[in-house]
Amino acid sequence: MVPGHEIAGEVTEVGSKVRKVKVGDKVGVGCMVGACHSCESCANDLENYCPKMILTYSSINTDGTITFGGYSDHMVANERYIVRFPDSMPLDAAAPLLCAGITVYSPLKYFGLAEQGKHVGIVGLGGLGHVAVKFAKAFGAKVTVISTSPSKKTEALEHLGADSFLNSRDPDQLQGAMGTLDGIIDTVSAVHPILPLLGLLKSQGKLVLVGAPDKPLELPVISLIMGRKTVSGSSTGGMKETQEMIDFAAKHNITADIEVISMDYVNTAMERLAKADVRYRFVIDIANTLAATKP
Amino acid sequence: MVPGHEIAGEVTEVGSKVRKVKVGDKVGVGCMVGACHSCESCANDLENYCPKMILTYSSINTDGTITFGGYSDHMVANERYIVRFPDSMPLDAAAPLLCAGITVYSPLKYFGLAEQGKHVGIVGLGGLGHVAVKFAKAFGAKVTVISTSPSKKTEALEHLGADSFLNSRDPDQLQGAMGTLDGIIDTVSAVHPILPLLGLLKSQGKLVLVGAPDKPLELPVISLIMGRKTVSGSSTGGMKETQEMIDFAAKHNITADIEVISMDYVNTAMERLAKADVRYRFVIDIANTLAATKP
Repeated sequence: MVPGHEIAGEVTEVGSKVRKVKVGDKVGVGCMVGACHSCESCANDLENYCPKMILTYSSINTDGTITFGGYSDHMVANERYIVRFPDSMPLDAAAPLLCAGITVYSPLKYFGLAEQGKHVGIVGLGGLGHVAVKFAKAFGAKVTVISTSPSKKTEALEHLGADSFLNSRDPDQLQGAMGTLDGIIDTVSAVHPILPLLGLLKSQGKLVLVGAPDKPLELPVISLIMGRKTVSGSSTGGMKETQEMIDFAAKHNITADIEVISMDYVNTAMERLAKADVRYRFVIDIANTLAATKP
Repeated sequence: MVPGHEIAGEVTEVGSKVRKVKVGDKVGVGCMVGACHSCESCANDLENYCPKMILTYSSINTDGTITFGGYSDHMVANERYIVRFPDSMPLDAAAPLLCAGITVYSPLKYFGLAEQGKHVGIVGLGGLGHVAVKFAKAFGAKVTVISTSPSKKTEALEHLGADSFLNSRDPDQLQGAMGTLDGIIDTVSAVHPILPLLGLLKSQGKLVLVGAPDKPLELPVISLIMGRKTVSGSSTGGMKETQEMIDFAAKHNITADIEVISMDYVNTAMERLAKADVRYRFVIDIANTLAATKP
């Protein structure tokens, strides 16, 4: 397996029919590299929900080969799956937007939370959560970060610009914020209780899960019924929206907070990831360091 | 406790400022008899989601007394909580619409399922489910009834006019219908698996729970994420929408299928209810039978 699905680089060659990009353009490839292009999802620019969507790595491509991800110095991709970066964007800090960014941008838009005056909760301050705060703020929302780590309060408020912080292990703090949020983007992929999160929502409030726990969560139905509340899932976004997200990010100076590493640091990075010891994404400098690791 | 929250009758007296109804009008009172009238929910005609909503029975009224329900020959109610029945509607068969009817009508509308061409699933063919089929058909939707009782197929298709029937205990039937529904109204109040129901939904499909199991359901998050699906709850409806629902029902000749009983049959009716032995609602003829049971 060759992983990597937040890939940024420069165009070195284009096919004769390619009009979208030219040699020298700064581009990216995100989570997927293909889809059927004939189903309802594809027709609606939602290739990410196409049943035949092809993931950037470890997926079976149309020619029967396995797709390889971004841990390589060259990549061939269909232009539909290429995103253009404006010249002003740094490739390294923009790369994580291709998955982390679109994964939070898309539900903020789809579920009506990307609006001035909305009050949005972001659960979990990691790779996804920290860009979710940035996007929600750029949309004009009031943002509350919800985390089990009170140590993240300063980071959330002072560095990322969130308006408030809730320690989700403090019942008093939760009680004081009941019924105040229009929506929540929940980025946590571990099994966790959603009852307190539903309590934080106003009537008609929307809890959107973008992290995928490997076991079912407990769904307290009464909490949904008593306020016509909603629990939804959302997975990345279509290519049209991914380009829209990048253009929006460029306009609002949004990038991910990253730590650039060399290829031979990957195993150490994996160990640090397991301890959540990164703010907030490792980006591998393939161009300058892959060659050094070749046998 | 005096129960009863689907109450129909005739106006015998009105206060001097009442303009909504006059003596002799056919009227009803449903699930609630009061709310704060100053919160956001009340301002949006959603008294049913007001945190201070007063239920028709066993709730504490504004004067501190306990509310009594509809098992009585007279009732006093604030005109805001009174629904007008068109003269053409039979009071007995229309009464269950005041809770069962609005409980399914409201989510069909709110979640965008009350439209020509939508394909709607109705889970459970009881008091709520059978009127849900009637409303969904009247809205022009294609309707699939989903039930654990294959014996209800004929009833669903021939009597209620559903377009198709799925036995939810038959994996082959479920498999064959995967990804076909725009939305589902789930009326089951027992603990049950929602994974198969989520599988029946198209991408962006909506599962709406209107029955309230007393224990949490299992929420399979991946199923939500992979198709941007939604699980929501919904509780009755506001008074404005309840009137709209009654007017719509009158126009489309929708009433509940009922069995009219006398007051002294109530205990037997409770036993039959526990066995789901009713099609589909018992209605007590209070006016003609309450006096006979008085001591």
